[in-house]
Amino acid sequence: MKAEFINPFLTAAKNVLETMAQTQVTPQKPRLKEGNTSYGEVTGIIGMTSEEITGSMIVSFTEKCILKIVANMLMEDPKDKIDDEVVDAVGELTNMICGGAKAQLAKLDHKFALATPNMVVGKGVEISYYSKAPTIVIPFETAAGSFVVEANLSEKA
Amino acid sequence: MKAEFINPFLTAAKNVLETMAQTQVTPQKPRLKEGNTSYGEVTGIIGMTSEEITGSMIVSFTEKCILKIVANMLMEDPKDKIDDEVVDAVGELTNMICGGAKAQLAKLDHKFALATPNMVVGKGVEISYYSKAPTIVIPFETAAGSFVVEANLSEKA
Repeated sequence: MKAEFINPFLTAAKNVLETMAQTQVTPQKPRLKEGNTSYGEVTGIIGMTSEEITGSMIVSFTEKCILKIVANMLMEDPKDKIDDEVVDAVGELTNMICGGAKAQLAKLDHKFALATPNMVVGKGVEISYYSKAPTIVIPFETAAGSFVVEANLSEKA
Repeated sequence: MKAEFINPFLTAAKNVLETMAQTQVTPQKPRLKEGNTSYGEVTGIIGMTSEEITGSMIVSFTEKCILKIVANMLMEDPKDKIDDEVVDAVGELTNMICGGAKAQLAKLDHKFALATPNMVVGKGVEISYYSKAPTIVIPFETAAGSFVVEANLSEKA
């Protein structure tokens, strides 16, 4: 995956969380993913494809982090556990982050179409990519905990 | 989801399993999905999008069923558990089934682009769709056990 593809996801995640959930986020150094274990307790997956490139993006939140983010989005006190409303919010955030990245990637002359997110609930679930390309992990810290954005994009065969 | 969209997935799954894995499959009556629990022990997810329609397709195999299918694909004895090779095979089957459905959908004047599959390992994992549209489940029986193909497609907002 080209290095120039990382920044669109990083910027989009920061923008979406700050504007939609009034949550300050601090990006950490991107790294390559090792293993297939999901990072957090609730994970959004979205497929993305362009003329030349295809792949998917994942956003995975720790429970404490997403409960606070959703509380900010709804302007309510945090829920005590992940429920359908939280899972839906992860779908919405996944959509918006990938939509933001898509807009940035279009400026690099890559016009991606996005599929609809799926959300997986569970800690330590094994989620693999059907790809020989490495997966980039962008970790983020918030006051309420951490989340990651992962992207795996490769040239079409 | 339009009823005419069901048959492309049904036919593609039957064709792929019969040609790639010499596995006779018997489609059962399609139904609407209730709840968010994954059907089998290993599940492939692939995003698909056209000009007007977006969504995703899921293929979920029981362990016994996929171990026999992979054994047929590799012309080896069945493995005793789901390993990376089995998970990769689920990615390949997901890709091929959705590719077959894409070819049929194109004949209905819906030109879909496909993303790259992700695979989720685990029984009873909660996998949701970020969609208000109902999810169609097409169950299949094989001599070695069962699997399902799910599709959730909706008009773009």
